[in-house]
Amino acid sequence: MGGHSVVALAGGVGGAKLAEGLAAHLGDRLSVVVNTGDDCERHGLLVMPDHDTVLYNLAGLEQAGLGWGVEGDTYAAMNQLAAYGEEAWFRLGDRDLALHVARTARLRAGGRLTDVCLGLQRALGLAARILPMSDVPVRTQVRTADGWLEFQEYFVHQRQTPDVLELRFDGALDASPTPEVAAAFGEASSIVLCPSNPLVSIGPILAVPGMRSLLAAARARGVPVVAVSPIIGGHALKGPADRMLAALGHESSALGVARLYADLVDVFVLDAVDADEALVVETLGMRTLVTNTIMTDDASRARLAGEVLTALR
Amino acid sequence: MGGHSVVALAGGVGGAKLAEGLAAHLGDRLSVVVNTGDDCERHGLLVMPDHDTVLYNLAGLEQAGLGWGVEGDTYAAMNQLAAYGEEAWFRLGDRDLALHVARTARLRAGGRLTDVCLGLQRALGLAARILPMSDVPVRTQVRTADGWLEFQEYFVHQRQTPDVLELRFDGALDASPTPEVAAAFGEASSIVLCPSNPLVSIGPILAVPGMRSLLAAARARGVPVVAVSPIIGGHALKGPADRMLAALGHESSALGVARLYADLVDVFVLDAVDADEALVVETLGMRTLVTNTIMTDDASRARLAGEVLTALR
Repeated sequence: MGGHSVVALAGGVGGAKLAEGLAAHLGDRLSVVVNTGDDCERHGLLVMPDHDTVLYNLAGLEQAGLGWGVEGDTYAAMNQLAAYGEEAWFRLGDRDLALHVARTARLRAGGRLTDVCLGLQRALGLAARILPMSDVPVRTQVRTADGWLEFQEYFVHQRQTPDVLELRFDGALDASPTPEVAAAFGEASSIVLCPSNPLVSIGPILAVPGMRSLLAAARARGVPVVAVSPIIGGHALKGPADRMLAALGHESSALGVARLYADLVDVFVLDAVDADEALVVETLGMRTLVTNTIMTDDASRARLAGEVLTALR
Repeated sequence: MGGHSVVALAGGVGGAKLAEGLAAHLGDRLSVVVNTGDDCERHGLLVMPDHDTVLYNLAGLEQAGLGWGVEGDTYAAMNQLAAYGEEAWFRLGDRDLALHVARTARLRAGGRLTDVCLGLQRALGLAARILPMSDVPVRTQVRTADGWLEFQEYFVHQRQTPDVLELRFDGALDASPTPEVAAAFGEASSIVLCPSNPLVSIGPILAVPGMRSLLAAARARGVPVVAVSPIIGGHALKGPADRMLAALGHESSALGVARLYADLVDVFVLDAVDADEALVVETLGMRTLVTNTIMTDDASRARLAGEVLTALR
């Protein structure tokens, strides 16, 4: 990696969009640390929704309009899995399935998660690196009125409808950042918290023991940290971040997110519609950048990424 | 099972065709004991070519003209697996892949091979039962000038071109017939050796310690055994049985097959083109049935199966 390398922390679709914008500027000088708390086993295969969403976006394969999965994918295998009585609410496309099959085979053959993921990324021609936050499994769980649910049970099967009463990151206490993650922080000249759910996308990454220390050590060296708000006008563009923030006692606003990041971040990026929150955010000790943060196409991803990188200089 | 239950031993496509003809007459009174020596792991998934060929034929899903795989299957996942650098010479269709994914998931969850296979068969609505010869892995290996090869390396990757110098059934000494196989033999009123390769389809089944005793015990009770020649006019309709017989010192003819089965079989079925071999076959101590044994469609499968069942009465 060159002298101006960047570490981005990302979860789902919003994070993947900004990661792709950053990759357009940075190429192999970008390392994306992804949340693995959403990972799950489906049909005996390890599925990594956040890693894979970033992978498909960086490879230009993602479904237009949805942002996850593979554009034009088919569901022949999934329909047949359903015929065999397999649970079918988590619908994996045929091309997507190949990723989970190849990954699981390589893990079962003894491969380390990070090595296996990097190999799959190289096969799709990625210049940037997508790094699992840890090689040790961490699983986000959501407590609802029905008790603790696996994250994808809440997120996909129950369509994020139940109220979230509590979150936990099962396994996090046994996890640690990988050597690749530690090295990326050590070499970073800037750090970006992508517009991902602060509670269940960025949250699990920061819950890995040692991760906050890596971030703090970089800041102590003078490396600036920027966060982009995933909340625009009080709402999440995608996913349950707004309701989850409110349910767990936070404010569903850019300001509410800024408060969560107050001791971690130097620059906070708000959407223009939230310009009136900028002054209060600055009282938290951050600089602010107010701009259009909605990424509708490759050009707007690259533009926002460029503004974010400029704000860090 | 009713009073007139039948056990059929089968390997690949020819055996699957007769099994389907038998199923048309017998429904749930048919148990097909299948060779597992061809089984292999592809992309971390257990593939069972002989079980699956019989499964697809009994379910009416098989590819017309080929006899294996799923009619109209697509290869989206396979092409993507190749993009990830996975070996792609063993081409699995998307619908076919679902079978291997579901099976492997259930085995990894602790399922017993026979239970898992029966569950998959029931999901496709089969009345007959397809029984793996053993729950213990047996792997057919082929010695060529290049040394010992896994069966599918020889059969699919090298397209059966190398001369076969020797066969072995790795793991067979540790294998035993399953309780279901033993019960099927115990209840059988007739036994059919399908027109499958005698060396690498029927051979591994008979190589499982205890299998020949089950067959002998049934014959001692007066249960007739019939074998249908897979060699017609000196040639195999499909696969390398003819060349393999010749290379290993046998005659590539119906008579050559009959000699291999001489101490196991009561009735030997030859194709009409081999009528002149019938008298010599009878000197081996078997009755013969000479008929048209080529199964081109469902009607000819059922007709041959009907003749075979009648010959056993």
